Amino acid sequence: MSDSDIHYRNYNNNNNHYYPSSSSSSFSSCEKEGLYKAILSRRDVRSHFISDKNIPNDALVRILNAAHHAPSVGFSQPWNFILIKDKSIRQQVKESFLTEYKKSISMLDNDKTRQEKYLSLKLEGIMESAINICVTYDHTKFGPFILGRTSIAETGVYSVCCAIQNLWLAARAEGIGVGWVSILSNEDLQKILLIPEHVRPVAYLCLGYVEEFAAKPDLENAGWLHRIELSEVICYEQWGYSRSAISSSDSWSEFCSNIQ
Amino acid sequence: MSDSDIHYRNYNNNNNHYYPSSSSSSFSSCEKEGLYKAILSRRDVRSHFISDKNIPNDALVRILNAAHHAPSVGFSQPWNFILIKDKSIRQQVKESFLTEYKKSISMLDNDKTRQEKYLSLKLEGIMESAINICVTYDHTKFGPFILGRTSIAETGVYSVCCAIQNLWLAARAEGIGVGWVSILSNEDLQKILLIPEHVRPVAYLCLGYVEEFAAKPDLENAGWLHRIELSEVICYEQWGYSRSAISSSDSWSEFCSNIQ
Repeated sequence: MSDSDIHYRNYNNNNNHYYPSSSSSSFSSCEKEGLYKAILSRRDVRSHFISDKNIPNDALVRILNAAHHAPSVGFSQPWNFILIKDKSIRQQVKESFLTEYKKSISMLDNDKTRQEKYLSLKLEGIMESAINICVTYDHTKFGPFILGRTSIAETGVYSVCCAIQNLWLAARAEGIGVGWVSILSNEDLQKILLIPEHVRPVAYLCLGYVEEFAAKPDLENAGWLHRIELSEVICYEQWGYSRSAISSSDSWSEFCSNIQ
Repeated sequence: MSDSDIHYRNYNNNNNHYYPSSSSSSFSSCEKEGLYKAILSRRDVRSHFISDKNIPNDALVRILNAAHHAPSVGFSQPWNFILIKDKSIRQQVKESFLTEYKKSISMLDNDKTRQEKYLSLKLEGIMESAINICVTYDHTKFGPFILGRTSIAETGVYSVCCAIQNLWLAARAEGIGVGWVSILSNEDLQKILLIPEHVRPVAYLCLGYVEEFAAKPDLENAGWLHRIELSEVICYEQWGYSRSAISSSDSWSEFCSNIQ
């Protein structure tokens, strides 16, 4: 049994506090591949949920544990996860979506082509998914002095977003789709889920098994927007020095030639 | 050659736009393990960087490509990555850190025990790491109408945080440590890196090979704060309904018994 076998076994045994020994520090090709596969094939899922297939408890625990092992500023772990199955609660969230969705449609009144495309998209799976999860940010946890949060207060909520991405990737590896519903009113969420004032909803997620994961993101498939080239989002040393500004004598030129 | 071999080979061939076919949709045990291993053994690295070991171009491209494949609201991909090797630029960032660090120390003047512990911690590896990366958020990209960002404007910056977490996990799988320096002034960063006013710095990261990844987070090891139990960050249906409030007849009771 390899080190990594030990790792995963311990993990499946629900030992949430397992930490790998440094001897299992490096990744095999297959392990590396698993991570990149999760990252590259993760999708924002809004449709094709298999409604009658529940998520097993152990898979849900693994997914939540992955979220809980995100980095957090000053180890403040400022997240909470509200798990929602109740249909009447979900229906109230759906109504908040519908209200906000109507508002957003009217923002495209001056661009009828885009508005029509927008209307053709399915944007949420609140009722059809197996479970909804509201992820929240509590800035008071372990506070008021949080190491590393003294200069930039927003780093607290950034930690919660890292937890959401962990959750999303773990779900993907478990074959479970996740859709982030952002067309919602946080004030509504706060009321519906009885979230206290000092706690902020960060994400409302819909999880469930799906028939398949689309080869490309829905919005790319629909021609809504295109994938930006990687080289276009990279600058060198300072803002604005991108690939086109790098000369062949520049120390970055070899790196630049490695990027598509 | 399995489907997943194809996936990884294509990926290594620098085909940034590779998407897996649905036939390779499910994860083998080893692939799943790779993801969980990256999530559970990722660390915020501030020391023990191997200063003279450079990151190969292909590894850096894979890491940045992983970041670029994060979810983004309305597929807006609002991130940019400034790669910094220049020592004089890094020195200016280090000075911003030192100024902000001094301010933070004084916040603990009324708690000398904690202040002393705080002073004993190494909090950044700006100069010793192989490369620094500043990750930024540009709300104007593809705007002003961004699908899904119409009700909650913060979802734009949340997307950037998801990209940061992808970057962090990919680096871990490559054996590269990442440290997020948050004791900085964004105004300083904006000036030093010539970042325009409409673009916001989100994270300043230090990357480099490390001798080993610590078994536990530094702040947990140092006894700064403890890891919260997973069961303590989960609520059921609404805020406040946690494990202690769940009766044995509740539909959540079986799930609760699965969590440590």
